[in-house]
Amino acid sequence: MNHGFFTIISRAEFEALLKGFGPLDTKRIPLSQASGRVLAEDIVAAHDWPLMNRSCMDGYAINARDIFGATETNPGYLECTASLSIEKAPDISLFPGECARIATGGILPEGADAVVMIEHTQSMNDEEMGTVEFRKSAAPGENVMMRGEDAQTDKTALAAGTVIRPQEVGLSAALGFEELTIYDQPRVGILSTGDELIELSETPRPGQVRDVNSLTISALAELAGAVPTRYGIIKDDLDSLKAALAKALAENDVVLLSGGSSIGVRDLTVQTIESMDDAELLAHGVALSPGKPTILGRVGTKPVLGLPGQVTSALVVMHVLILPLLRHIQGDAGAFDEVRRPMRQAVLARNIHSKPGREDYIRIRLEERDNDLPLAHPVLGKSGLLRTMIQANGLAPIPADSEGLYEGQTIGVWMV
Amino acid sequence: MNHGFFTIISRAEFEALLKGFGPLDTKRIPLSQASGRVLAEDIVAAHDWPLMNRSCMDGYAINARDIFGATETNPGYLECTASLSIEKAPDISLFPGECARIATGGILPEGADAVVMIEHTQSMNDEEMGTVEFRKSAAPGENVMMRGEDAQTDKTALAAGTVIRPQEVGLSAALGFEELTIYDQPRVGILSTGDELIELSETPRPGQVRDVNSLTISALAELAGAVPTRYGIIKDDLDSLKAALAKALAENDVVLLSGGSSIGVRDLTVQTIESMDDAELLAHGVALSPGKPTILGRVGTKPVLGLPGQVTSALVVMHVLILPLLRHIQGDAGAFDEVRRPMRQAVLARNIHSKPGREDYIRIRLEERDNDLPLAHPVLGKSGLLRTMIQANGLAPIPADSEGLYEGQTIGVWMV
Repeated sequence: MNHGFFTIISRAEFEALLKGFGPLDTKRIPLSQASGRVLAEDIVAAHDWPLMNRSCMDGYAINARDIFGATETNPGYLECTASLSIEKAPDISLFPGECARIATGGILPEGADAVVMIEHTQSMNDEEMGTVEFRKSAAPGENVMMRGEDAQTDKTALAAGTVIRPQEVGLSAALGFEELTIYDQPRVGILSTGDELIELSETPRPGQVRDVNSLTISALAELAGAVPTRYGIIKDDLDSLKAALAKALAENDVVLLSGGSSIGVRDLTVQTIESMDDAELLAHGVALSPGKPTILGRVGTKPVLGLPGQVTSALVVMHVLILPLLRHIQGDAGAFDEVRRPMRQAVLARNIHSKPGREDYIRIRLEERDNDLPLAHPVLGKSGLLRTMIQANGLAPIPADSEGLYEGQTIGVWMV
Repeated sequence: MNHGFFTIISRAEFEALLKGFGPLDTKRIPLSQASGRVLAEDIVAAHDWPLMNRSCMDGYAINARDIFGATETNPGYLECTASLSIEKAPDISLFPGECARIATGGILPEGADAVVMIEHTQSMNDEEMGTVEFRKSAAPGENVMMRGEDAQTDKTALAAGTVIRPQEVGLSAALGFEELTIYDQPRVGILSTGDELIELSETPRPGQVRDVNSLTISALAELAGAVPTRYGIIKDDLDSLKAALAKALAENDVVLLSGGSSIGVRDLTVQTIESMDDAELLAHGVALSPGKPTILGRVGTKPVLGLPGQVTSALVVMHVLILPLLRHIQGDAGAFDEVRRPMRQAVLARNIHSKPGREDYIRIRLEERDNDLPLAHPVLGKSGLLRTMIQANGLAPIPADSEGLYEGQTIGVWMV
C-alpha cells in the first residue's frame, strides 16, 4: 500500500467500517449502577404491572354507566360506601349507585371501571361517606391504569439493546430486577506521540507543547461511557510505538493514537498498526473537515484509530465518529443514528463557504432569542486554536455535496 | 399556613426560588477528573499560548509580500533554504525571496508571516531545498496561529463559572494546570415514603409497589453530576420522617422526598420540613403538568423537595426543575437557561389539547425523516404509566398561556 497519498473515504463509509466492531462482553451489575449502560438480555416480567387496575387520581371509584351524562348543570349522585386504603386490595364491591373514595395508586374495587377526580365532585355532607355529587361523566377506564399496561407476565418488558435511562431503571425496579445484564463499558487506551510533547508539569520551550490531546480525548471518551487509560507520551519511533500499542491493546477494547497530522507521523502510525499480528488497515483518511487525517485499523477484533494531531480536529473526529463507535460496541444499535445527535435548529447569522467533496463541521456559538430560534454565529479564527472550540457551543455540519450555507437559513447545530 | 389547598406558583417563580440556593463549597481535583464540573476559580495563564507564531498546516513559511498576486497561471517562485524541525525554534531567518518547509505546529522563522499549504506548491526539483513554485498568494497571518491567540500571560484564560468540557480540559492542559479548583458535586439524599412501598427483593401483594422512585430519582440526579444516596423506605409517620430527614440533611447538600401525591402525604411532607430547625416552606405546588404537587422547602441553607409520588411525574419534575438546581448549586450560572435544554425541532403529528394556566409537558416519540425535521408523535396512555416515558424520547413543553398545539406545527422537543 502506498502511504504517500490519502485514500479518503466518506463519513458513511467510515461509519460502516466502525459498525463492524463489537459488541463487547456482558456482565451483571446492580440496577443502581445501570443508568447509561445498554441492556444485554431481555427483561421478562414475572408478573403483570400494574398488578391490578389502579387509580391515577385522587377521587371516587365509580362505574361509568352510573353517572353517564353528568354535567355541571345536570349532576349525578352516588352513595359513597367506603374510603379505600392505598396499601391493600379493596374488601368491598361497588353496587349500582355506589362509589368509593380512592387515592392515587389505589386499587379499583370490583364493580368499578373508572375514577372521577375529586375536583369534579362535591360531598353533600361534611363526612367522607354519604351522597356525592358528580359534575362530570367518565368513560370506562378513565383515570385508571389497567393491569398489565406497563408489563405482562412472561412477556419482554425491555429488550436487549435498550439504552437504560432513568425510566428504564424505574420499570426494572417495578418488576423486581435488582441486577441487570449489560454490555461492558469500553476500556479505551490513549497513546500520545510526538517528540515535541512534554508533560503538564514541564514548562514549554519554543516548539514544545504540553500533552493536551490525551487528556482532552480521555474526557471525550468518558462522555460515551468509556473508561479511558492514558499511556503517556510515546517517542516517535517505530519500536517505542509498537511496544506501547501492544501493551495498550492487551489492556483495552479500543486504542486511540493521537499524533501529528504530518505525513511522516501518519505513516509511522500506519506502520505501527500494520506491524501487529492479525492487523489490517481499514481506512487512511475520511472526507471530514477538520478530521481528514484519521486512520482506522483493526488488530484482532479491536479497532485502533489514529487521530489528527491538532486537538481541535481530534475533538471533531471524536464527536462525529469515535463517541458513536464507543456506544456502538456497548451494544447500542442506534449509536450512529442522526436522531441521537443533540441537534438544535438555529438561524445562521452569516454566509459560510464550504468546499464540496467533504463534510465540513463549522464551530457555532448560539445566541438565544425570545420567541424565536437561536441565532447561529460561526466562530471565526484558525481552526487549530482551542479558543474556537471554547467559544463554540455547537458544530454545524455542512453536507459534502453543498457549497455552503446562507445567512438566514435554518440549520441544525449539534451541541458539543 | 393552610395546607388543605395548594398555593401554586409558576415555573419561573419556582425557578427563582431554586436560584436562591448554593453554590456549594469548592475543592481542588486533578484535571483528569474535571470534565463536567464547574470551574470555581479563574485560570490565569502563566505564559502566552501559543507560545510563538505556529503553522496550522504542512507547507512553506513565506513572507506574504514575496508571492503577492501568485495564481495557477501566474505562479511565484521562492528559494527554500531550510526544512524546519517541529520541536524547536527555527535557527534561521527568511530573507526576501526565501521560504522554508514547515510542518503543522512548527514555529515560523523570523521574516515569515504566513504559510502556504503544500497542495498549492510544487518543488521544482526532487529535493526539499531549492526553487519552489507557489500557485496561490497568501494574506499575512494566513494559516498561522499567532502567539497568545488562545491565552495571554497573566490574563484570565477561563473564568470561574465555566462548565468544563473536553475543550476546557484541553486549554487547561496547554497552560500546565494539573489541578483545577471546582465546585463540589452535590450530595443528594433520597427518601422514599409510603406504607405501600416494598423492597425490590419482595414480591408485591395487591396494593404494594416496589420502591421504583428512589432508584429512578437517583439515576436522574446522576445525570446532573450529583452523588445520590438512597435512605430506603421511610414509614409514613411524622417521627420516622423527621428522623430520616434530619439524618439525610446532615449528610447531603439537597434532600429529595419521594412520597405519595395525596393530600395526606403532602401534608406530612410539609410538616416534616417545617419541624426542622431554621426551616421555611417556600412553595407548595408548581403550575406544571405533570408535577403540580411539588413542594419546596429550605432547612438552613439546603433545599428540601417533596416530589410527586407518581414516578412519571417525578421524572418530569426532575428534568424541568431539579437537574437545573443541581447544576446551579455546582456554580453553573446558566443551568436554568433554555439554551441548555437538549431541544430539537420537530413537526407535530397530531393536535394536542392543553389546559391554560399551567405548563404541560407532553411525552413525545420522534420519528426521523430523511431531509426533513423529525415527526413528533405524542405518546398516548395514562400519564402514570412508566411505558409512556419508555416509549418517549422527548418532552414537548406547552406554555401556560396556550390552549394546545396543532398538527403540522413545528415545536421544540426536549430530549430525555
